[in-house]
This record gives sequence, C-alpha cells and structure tokens, in this order.
Amino acid sequence: MKKSEYLQQVERALVYYQRAGIVLTEEEKQRIEVADFGLGAVNDVGLQLLTYINTERVCAKEMVLLPHQTCPEHKHVPTGGAAGKEETFRCRYGKVYLYVTGEGSKEDIAAHLPKTEVSVFHEVILAPGEQYTIMPETWHWFQAGEEGAVISEFSTRSTDETDVFTDPRLVRAVTIEE
Amino acid sequence: MKKSEYLQQVERALVYYQRAGIVLTEEEKQRIEVADFGLGAVNDVGLQLLTYINTERVCAKEMVLLPHQTCPEHKHVPTGGAAGKEETFRCRYGKVYLYVTGEGSKEDIAAHLPKTEVSVFHEVILAPGEQYTIMPETWHWFQAGEEGAVISEFSTRSTDETDVFTDPRLVRAVTIEE
Repeated sequence: MKKSEYLQQVERALVYYQRAGIVLTEEEKQRIEVADFGLGAVNDVGLQLLTYINTERVCAKEMVLLPHQTCPEHKHVPTGGAAGKEETFRCRYGKVYLYVTGEGSKEDIAAHLPKTEVSVFHEVILAPGEQYTIMPETWHWFQAGEEGAVISEFSTRSTDETDVFTDPRLVRAVTIEE
Repeated sequence: MKKSEYLQQVERALVYYQRAGIVLTEEEKQRIEVADFGLGAVNDVGLQLLTYINTERVCAKEMVLLPHQTCPEHKHVPTGGAAGKEETFRCRYGKVYLYVTGEGSKEDIAAHLPKTEVSVFHEVILAPGEQYTIMPETWHWFQAGEEGAVISEFSTRSTDETDVFTDPRLVRAVTIEE
C-alpha cells in the first residue's frame, strides 16, 4: 500500500471513530493500522484498526469497517503453545454482518458476497450494543452495512501473523511504500 | 442495599453511559451491577458496572464512577490455579484518579482522601482516550473527578469474589433487599 493511500484510509477511519463517540489520543491516531490483506483493494477487502493493548494474556482493539468493506474469512489457530485467540466483537456504531461456521447458505445472506473466497454463512447481525463471541479455530468473516461500523474487540493475545485465511491469496502483514 | 437505592443508582449510571456515547441493550441495562462494598455509603465508596463478557480467558466491563466516588483499594490474587487478574483501564469520559503501588504520598494526591483505608499513592490521571494497565497483585484504588467517569476495563477472567481489600470492613458481594 502506498503511504498516501494509507494516510487517506486513516483519515476515513477517524471519521467513524468520531461518529461512534470514541476518543483517541494523538499518539493512537498515529498508529492506526490499515490492513488490505495483500489484495490491493482496501475499500472492498480491508480493515482499519487500533490496538489498545496486547499483552501475553489480554488484547483489546477498536476496529473500523467502511461501508460494505469486508474483513476476509480466517481463523485463529493455537500459537506458541497457547490455544487460539478467543474474541468478542461488540458493535459500537453502524451494523455488522458477521458469518461463522454453522447453518446458512450463500444465497440467503444480507451482506454483499465478498471478492475473496468464503466458506461459512451462518449469519449474525450486530447493531450497536450487540456482541458475539468467536471461539478459537472458528472460521469467520465480517462486513459493515451501508453506514460502516465501529467494533470493539475484547480477546486473548493477538497473534495476527498466525491467522489462517480461506483465500490463499491473502496475507495479514501490510507493507507501506514510501 | 435496598432495591429502591439500587434502582436509583442504576438510573444515575445510565446518564453517564449516555454522556460517554456508549450504547447498551435493554437486557444489559437490566443487569448493571452496583457495588457498595458493604459500607452502605455507595455515593462515596462504590462502583456501577456492566460486565460485557467474562469467560475462562477474557473479561470486558464498562464501569461508571459518580463524581468523587471511590472504588476502594484492593488487589487481584491468583485464583483457581491461574495468575491474578490483569486489567487495563481506559478512560472514556470524565477523569480518573488512579493510585497504584509506587512513589507518591497521601499529602500530594489530587483525589479526595477516601473514607476507607488506602496504602498506595502513586498517582496516574487518565483523561478520555488514556489508559493504564494494572498487573496482578498490584494494590490499586481509583476515584472519579468532579464530572464522574466512564472506564472500559479489558482483562483476564474476573473473579471478584477473591479480591483482597486493604480495609477489612469491605466485601465485594452485594445483597439487594426487596
């Protein structure tokens, strides 16, 4: 991702944090992450996020999805001798269409079909104040509704680098080009 | 605590959640906890809180302190074979005066001296967007400024029933009388 594109995406994310009434420090605004998962189509497949804390035991993040932007299907596997990441998503603003392993079919979902491979279609729709817990090794992907979304994540230690994606084209690490 | 007093305290807390822009579901509003730590002086020594999630590995809460209300000094000890609770406090609204083990003396603190025994005076002041992580077995107490405070807590499993208080009069469990 080009640095100009990264900075533009951060500006977009800041608008949503503000709409959700979430206050960030200047230091935090400078370290918002933009993940395009290596696909180079960040507004379709991407995620903006800020990690508040990530210790050996606890992690908390504040994530932004732009309208219909999708965080692609992945799962959290055991890492460094510990069980995979367990995470709770709490919708703070907008609407979240979350898909996890379980009953449901591609034809019936409310979200737009993403531009990456997906295999699970059990639908969970989160409005502000609603939340859902994803246990380790559960396939999941999620997309914002037309107003975008802000999502608090409460979890065990985050080890993004060991996430497993359904679509083999995807990678988590992002390179910002000057 | 009388049920009428409990309900009044919940109404007070709801005002602060709203000021902080935090959306709760109706179900959540019904299970806000009010802790008076057995002292019967909840507006001085007390805490209003909502537990979003508390699993074997992760806990997240949203806490409200009324103006100058104090959560009394305590620490989290190893419980059920696991290390004590590790917690990060993130101020969302108002101001938090937090005191932990370390340099500092009773005479120099910005908070009002609480009506319960305290022994640590290392001062950390949190404005909205600022946060602090308290490692297990660290003595700590905290008080809101004159505008009250809303504090997100991100932590390992919460086991309030094993908290150790400095003031021997205090207990965590609350009984609501009909």
